[in-house]
Amino acid sequence: MKIVAAKKILKANDQLASENRAEFAREGVLCVNLVGSPGCGKTTLLEAVFAQLAPTLSPSVIEGDIAGQVDAERMERIGIPVVQINTDGMCHLEASMIAAAAQGIDLKNVDMLWIENVGNLVCTAGYDLGEHLRIVVLSTAEGDDKLIKYPAIFQRSDALVITKTDLLPYLNFDVAQARAGMQRLAPEARVFEVSATTGHGVAELVQWLVEKQAAARD
Amino acid sequence: MKIVAAKKILKANDQLASENRAEFAREGVLCVNLVGSPGCGKTTLLEAVFAQLAPTLSPSVIEGDIAGQVDAERMERIGIPVVQINTDGMCHLEASMIAAAAQGIDLKNVDMLWIENVGNLVCTAGYDLGEHLRIVVLSTAEGDDKLIKYPAIFQRSDALVITKTDLLPYLNFDVAQARAGMQRLAPEARVFEVSATTGHGVAELVQWLVEKQAAARD
Repeated sequence: MKIVAAKKILKANDQLASENRAEFAREGVLCVNLVGSPGCGKTTLLEAVFAQLAPTLSPSVIEGDIAGQVDAERMERIGIPVVQINTDGMCHLEASMIAAAAQGIDLKNVDMLWIENVGNLVCTAGYDLGEHLRIVVLSTAEGDDKLIKYPAIFQRSDALVITKTDLLPYLNFDVAQARAGMQRLAPEARVFEVSATTGHGVAELVQWLVEKQAAARD
Repeated sequence: MKIVAAKKILKANDQLASENRAEFAREGVLCVNLVGSPGCGKTTLLEAVFAQLAPTLSPSVIEGDIAGQVDAERMERIGIPVVQINTDGMCHLEASMIAAAAQGIDLKNVDMLWIENVGNLVCTAGYDLGEHLRIVVLSTAEGDDKLIKYPAIFQRSDALVITKTDLLPYLNFDVAQARAGMQRLAPEARVFEVSATTGHGVAELVQWLVEKQAAARD
């Protein structure tokens, strides 16, 4: 009985996600679902990407957090339109929350809609939000074994961004090992190495995103 | 209907957790539930603690992972008896899993039973496993704002261990801010600052654990 109910919820979520995706596409908006552990550097990555995005491309952000609005305030500080979702204990975002949040966004004047999911390497994997791209963030400080321990989320992502590469000299993180893991789990996915602190690798990621946005607009 | 089912599950979990706790106490075993984000350094902390634990105290570990047995292998390598639980996608451990895993442990010859929970700063907060102590690990690489964003797990912990303090020179982590957050959420909790790499702060944590173990035995 419980499993049936859960399946129904997931089905409803998939239906809503498809509707979200179609609406974003109609408006020429590329929607990106950014997932990763707490503290892997999702918000800092967004700040670095937005700093290098051409001014002709307008981003907007939906921030998902259990509590607080720390990240939304960071987006406001750099002038990015943002909607905060507080899940009040819930461990992931769902398509219905995105549909509601999108009501507060002027999609006609947005080119890229970023969803910063709740920091969670497990539960966020199962929920399609209506994104066109799912990007999973793994910080070098977390260790290269995370692809073995949390395979689903990597398997279901279009790109892996390895963050905090400036910390590599102080850690045992093996970039080749992480790349090999991603190759095994998601052979089609792109892998980027980024340090938001030094700016290393950000341009390459931005270029890929701009190409994806152009394809979404066509 | 769904909510009722979930409540029933939680009630059954609490009942089982109490039974686990009573059994561990009967055997003079201190049970510690170690929680934190993926890659916060839980396994490395265990290695550092066990290295400083007096040989008169015998630890044992239950490793909880979505997939793989990377951490269990690390425990075996240092000669610690270990049972691996693979949750196969599930985002937290439950008391029933601990009861089953404990069957594989010779409790009469164990003084400290460590449960390394699935890396998850959200879902693990809601499940009592039958531990006597819950320790939440936060690495400096994750940022000091995690206490604002994921309050429940900190609120329900007996100690906060701030790990990877050797990385502090390269990060913006504010230890005072994290301490203040913990003071607000869990005023009774102890806070430890540890670097498993340099060994800094491990002795203080070990001393506290030994005291707790002695109290459990009495």
